[in-house]
Amino acid sequence: MPKMRAAIFVENGRIVLDDKPIPDVGPLDALMRVTTTTICGTDVHILKGEYPVAKGLTIGHEPVGIIEKLGSSVSGYREGQRVIAGAITPSGHSYACLCGCGSQDGVGTKHGFKAMGGWKFGNTIDGCQADYVLVKDAMANLSPIPEGLSDEQVLMCPDIMSTGFSGAESGGVRIGDTVVVFALGPIGLCAVAGAKLMGATTIIGVDTVPARLAVARQLGADHVIDFKAGDPVEQIMALTDGRGVDVAIEALGTQGTFESALKVLRPGGTLSSLGVYSSDLNIPLGAFAAGLGDLKIVTTLCPGGKERMRRLMDVVGSGRADLGPLVTHRFKLDQIEEAYDLFAHQRDGVLKVAITP
Amino acid sequence: MPKMRAAIFVENGRIVLDDKPIPDVGPLDALMRVTTTTICGTDVHILKGEYPVAKGLTIGHEPVGIIEKLGSSVSGYREGQRVIAGAITPSGHSYACLCGCGSQDGVGTKHGFKAMGGWKFGNTIDGCQADYVLVKDAMANLSPIPEGLSDEQVLMCPDIMSTGFSGAESGGVRIGDTVVVFALGPIGLCAVAGAKLMGATTIIGVDTVPARLAVARQLGADHVIDFKAGDPVEQIMALTDGRGVDVAIEALGTQGTFESALKVLRPGGTLSSLGVYSSDLNIPLGAFAAGLGDLKIVTTLCPGGKERMRRLMDVVGSGRADLGPLVTHRFKLDQIEEAYDLFAHQRDGVLKVAITP
Amino acid sequence: MPKMRAAIFVENGRIVLDDKPIPDVGPLDALMRVTTTTICGTDVHILKGEYPVAKGLTIGHEPVGIIEKLGSSVSGYREGQRVIAGAITPSGHSYACLCGCGSQDGVGTKHGFKAMGGWKFGNTIDGCQADYVLVKDAMANLSPIPEGLSDEQVLMCPDIMSTGFSGAESGGVRIGDTVVVFALGPIGLCAVAGAKLMGATTIIGVDTVPARLAVARQLGADHVIDFKAGDPVEQIMALTDGRGVDVAIEALGTQGTFESALKVLRPGGTLSSLGVYSSDLNIPLGAFAAGLGDLKIVTTLCPGGKERMRRLMDVVGSGRADLGPLVTHRFKLDQIEEAYDLFAHQRDGVLKVAITP
Amino acid sequence: MPKMRAAIFVENGRIVLDDKPIPDVGPLDALMRVTTTTICGTDVHILKGEYPVAKGLTIGHEPVGIIEKLGSSVSGYREGQRVIAGAITPSGHSYACLCGCGSQDGVGTKHGFKAMGGWKFGNTIDGCQADYVLVKDAMANLSPIPEGLSDEQVLMCPDIMSTGFSGAESGGVRIGDTVVVFALGPIGLCAVAGAKLMGATTIIGVDTVPARLAVARQLGADHVIDFKAGDPVEQIMALTDGRGVDVAIEALGTQGTFESALKVLRPGGTLSSLGVYSSDLNIPLGAFAAGLGDLKIVTTLCPGGKERMRRLMDVVGSGRADLGPLVTHRFKLDQIEEAYDLFAHQRDGVLKVAITP
Repeated sequence: MPKMRAAIFVENGRIVLDDKPIPDVGPLDALMRVTTTTICGTDVHILKGEYPVAKGLTIGHEPVGIIEKLGSSVSGYREGQRVIAGAITPSGHSYACLCGCGSQDGVGTKHGFKAMGGWKFGNTIDGCQADYVLVKDAMANLSPIPEGLSDEQVLMCPDIMSTGFSGAESGGVRIGDTVVVFALGPIGLCAVAGAKLMGATTIIGVDTVPARLAVARQLGADHVIDFKAGDPVEQIMALTDGRGVDVAIEALGTQGTFESALKVLRPGGTLSSLGVYSSDLNIPLGAFAAGLGDLKIVTTLCPGGKERMRRLMDVVGSGRADLGPLVTHRFKLDQIEEAYDLFAHQRDGVLKVAITP
Repeated sequence: MPKMRAAIFVENGRIVLDDKPIPDVGPLDALMRVTTTTICGTDVHILKGEYPVAKGLTIGHEPVGIIEKLGSSVSGYREGQRVIAGAITPSGHSYACLCGCGSQDGVGTKHGFKAMGGWKFGNTIDGCQADYVLVKDAMANLSPIPEGLSDEQVLMCPDIMSTGFSGAESGGVRIGDTVVVFALGPIGLCAVAGAKLMGATTIIGVDTVPARLAVARQLGADHVIDFKAGDPVEQIMALTDGRGVDVAIEALGTQGTFESALKVLRPGGTLSSLGVYSSDLNIPLGAFAAGLGDLKIVTTLCPGGKERMRRLMDVVGSGRADLGPLVTHRFKLDQIEEAYDLFAHQRDGVLKVAITP
Repeated sequence: MPKMRAAIFVENGRIVLDDKPIPDVGPLDALMRVTTTTICGTDVHILKGEYPVAKGLTIGHEPVGIIEKLGSSVSGYREGQRVIAGAITPSGHSYACLCGCGSQDGVGTKHGFKAMGGWKFGNTIDGCQADYVLVKDAMANLSPIPEGLSDEQVLMCPDIMSTGFSGAESGGVRIGDTVVVFALGPIGLCAVAGAKLMGATTIIGVDTVPARLAVARQLGADHVIDFKAGDPVEQIMALTDGRGVDVAIEALGTQGTFESALKVLRPGGTLSSLGVYSSDLNIPLGAFAAGLGDLKIVTTLCPGGKERMRRLMDVVGSGRADLGPLVTHRFKLDQIEEAYDLFAHQRDGVLKVAITP
Repeated sequence: MPKMRAAIFVENGRIVLDDKPIPDVGPLDALMRVTTTTICGTDVHILKGEYPVAKGLTIGHEPVGIIEKLGSSVSGYREGQRVIAGAITPSGHSYACLCGCGSQDGVGTKHGFKAMGGWKFGNTIDGCQADYVLVKDAMANLSPIPEGLSDEQVLMCPDIMSTGFSGAESGGVRIGDTVVVFALGPIGLCAVAGAKLMGATTIIGVDTVPARLAVARQLGADHVIDFKAGDPVEQIMALTDGRGVDVAIEALGTQGTFESALKVLRPGGTLSSLGVYSSDLNIPLGAFAAGLGDLKIVTTLCPGGKERMRRLMDVVGSGRADLGPLVTHRFKLDQIEEAYDLFAHQRDGVLKVAITP
């Protein structure tokens, strides 16, 4: 039985590279040879035991690679083709998928909905920090890489871009909007880029790390705010001359950023939340206008599927957004434990790492 | 100076009927002679001092009446015409109004947005529990009553119907949806009617008062749940066979109803909140799917303006919804203190009262 | 090789019942034993040679039946289960499907879009006027019939209801709208029911057959107009007191109905077109306001997929719309040529026929 | 009675500069001293008698200026303030305005809707090719010019940008869309800029004038097509590799561009029409997929009102779109007849002229 290397969750605090069998390919599956992948903040939550997964699971949900083998019922692709798959892999045929809610894909469940059910890689099935990854429902998920784009250029598409852009999309950003993004990690930075792509004319980025504030400016932020230099709510209200923002994007997952996002909304505005929270949230009565402010709070899990990936790769290919600055470090798969160490501790100004088997 | 009677907020716990001058009519105003009005739950909040207003203010925001006098710049109406005005009276010309957000009308403010700014009657200007009420921006707000409709038939339009229906509208109810409404006071009952009007095929009403549960059934609820007969979340999950609801409408303004509404949502569902809250809210981490459930929380303040009123009166006129059962008691304006007493204490199965000067 | 009976297109003017092999079941397919089906107006177009299909094709796209056999990769169903499938059977995994456009499913094509590509039964693959029908992409398309609903009760779901309702849905009908439906065949009648389900308060039906006008009234039309009793445009403008309608639904597919629908729109209104046209259309300059009227013309092909079917069966099950009056005649499969004859000539007040093998 | 200069429609073929009284200011009006204005293609239609207006009317609907005098009921502005008003000036209080359809403002009409009713300047009331222009419903329409922006920088906002951008907005352009714009006059060029602002990743511009193709590239077109160098439909289908476009924007108003736009749509795509047509249109059956392609045809009249203007000036101020290249020629008001001559004959590569009194 042929073996491959895979980054495996062993126990809280330990993800290690080990050998695993190369998976068998079912009729609807495709086996992808991974050529580049990366580590996500969520993987660090898993590493720390903050998000529970099964012991022995291969981690990673951002695959760039080459089709090694196609299932017997899969058509429309050829082996050897360069492809990506989204972090979220909707089946295409659950009730959730058929009403446009593939991230909550409940394939196999009674009603077809399952919270976060579309997130399979490195969560409920083996992920892609490995030599090979098995892609379920391949026809809905494999998206060919356009000629001329490198692995690194499309590496942000499966998760970071898709999630970050969805912050702007779910927020309903319109031409002329004022948008603030709270927290400028990779997802927040992509939210900045997404807000710009959709026509926001005033974009405010909030963080405290100078390098992140600088990248935010490159990606479209008109103003950046260091939350340590003063109350960010006050700074934003001053910047908007007291009006507040049309859309506030939360990209961290804490009470502080959530609450600040709510407080800077103009009446009728939208809080678009991307963060993964780890405790209950408090909605302050005043910021919520006692329920009478026509405010909206929307949450979005990274949209997936091959059509989404196609569109995002077109954004890259057309040069509409240059996310190159996000990849700050590169590692071989053999060094993945070192990569986790760097990334988990946010050392050396790391934004995203590229891992190549 | 001619006088009129008006229900005036004197101090916490006291709204009394007293004399006031009949207001002068500015160029954009209309003076309406009130022929029927009612008391809203919000008025009771004012009475109890839970929602602060200026001493001496006339209360009431649900006017049905006759145009007594038109301002010099008002055209398109005639004196003697039967009209209603919404509880919310957008100016039509603020930035908020011009982006479809008239309930947050900030006319006169720097940026044109003001939280709840469209709610003027009995809040920031004199209301309509009086012989006369002055309607600002009359051309945007006076809506002629179609022939054949009585005062009582249109009495729910200015607030209760508009608010209740908006719970279904903001929730985005679609044909075939499952909808739950938490709390079946007048607004919750109208939310039931609104969900039915928009094509929900399974409507669940939650309350504990048998008379309210019965009216909910009349207005379209397929199932009613007594929250005292068992955990409503469990009951709803059982009724939906574990799937949860597409849209949950909160119509009370408490932590309990808000939280239950969140807990019964299917992944990707929408919590449409109508209640007026009086304290911070807690969002339980699990019910919120840690921010990854594609859930939406939307709040709506009663939509106003003459086009909204026209549509709601058409609902009544066409017989699409019969809200007759909501008016359970009738009083003369002289008896308004008695009416407040009955309504504030929810005596005698009261749903809504009709007050006629 | 086991045989079955099937209604086969032989040549223009001839659809005959003949023997065919029972199809083989591929890994993603399901074989359905048809218990009830019907004839669609489109089938008559095929019969007359107005819509070309391959000789030898089995006709019919509205199947109600029982799962006879499941493909090896199909899960979530059991043999013997009562199910329907929509007239349109999206694969779930094409680019079109993944952007919510399954009716234009281009599975197998280069780009994933194909005009009308979701319509397969009786168009590009064998249909269901037969003892058995093969359902491709079964997991996206088989929708279990809720207990207690008869075959005839759900017989309108696969096409007629789905198409008719979509006229109202694509038109964006809102509470308080005025809607007109041009032509009250089965689809137009369902459009009336759909407009009512979505909250239209004034619904006008246009036809000339008294029985159809009567059924329209039963299903929700507030007014009916006999287009032979006077210019329908004038009658509608008179009924709406000169305002015009918010949404005009075209349900026939002719220049006359299309043009009249455009002429009665209020500025900013929507023409929602359902008809299958057979020649170029002319847009009159005046009715189009020279392109400056904020008018919209939207077309919709019957939405399919199991989630759509589930919702429509819920409409039936909840009693929200009673489409029982639409089935006016019943035939055995052996009599299908007779059924075609009756239906094609619109004899005996036929609306829809039920065919039972 | 003080006089001013105004460009007046005398008869077909003649617009002349003549004296007129400076208008009186009603309670809701504002008198604007025009500092810069321009000539629109529509004005040329008027000049040629293709669009009829009253003899003696002052032409022009794109005013940039200074508030000279405010009506007695107008608040929120000060005399001497630099402002613009949109070409379309919704009242804010008609039924049309209150349902978000201000371009079809029917203020003063029975039902509140009037086709093109929001277009008043130089159409139904005196326009702004004059020393002064009277702005009706001033509070809904006067939009202060942000500090630092010159007259010429905001000169495109009242009409050209608003109309052009609306082509992309009404078309529902999304991140990753492929968009084509037919005809690259000033409006088509702004449609290109609008499509880019909303996230289209492949933008194709169609025209034949090299200078226009060049400006289109500057504003965001990824590809330009000379329709004289080959059938544009074939060129577009080749460029999109046979797929077609998501959104086709028509910006001329001819059968040819309309028809080509329809032909290049992918199934499910949207034709967003901006042109002013002068004859009936033909919809080819095949391009329309016989009504079954889920195609949409939407038309939009230039959105107006002060909120719209504010947003567009923010686009300019933020540098998101640089429309500077559109102003190619400058004239004094005294030379306006000469300007009409140049513009009407499209001499000297003119795109837009700036007229300064």
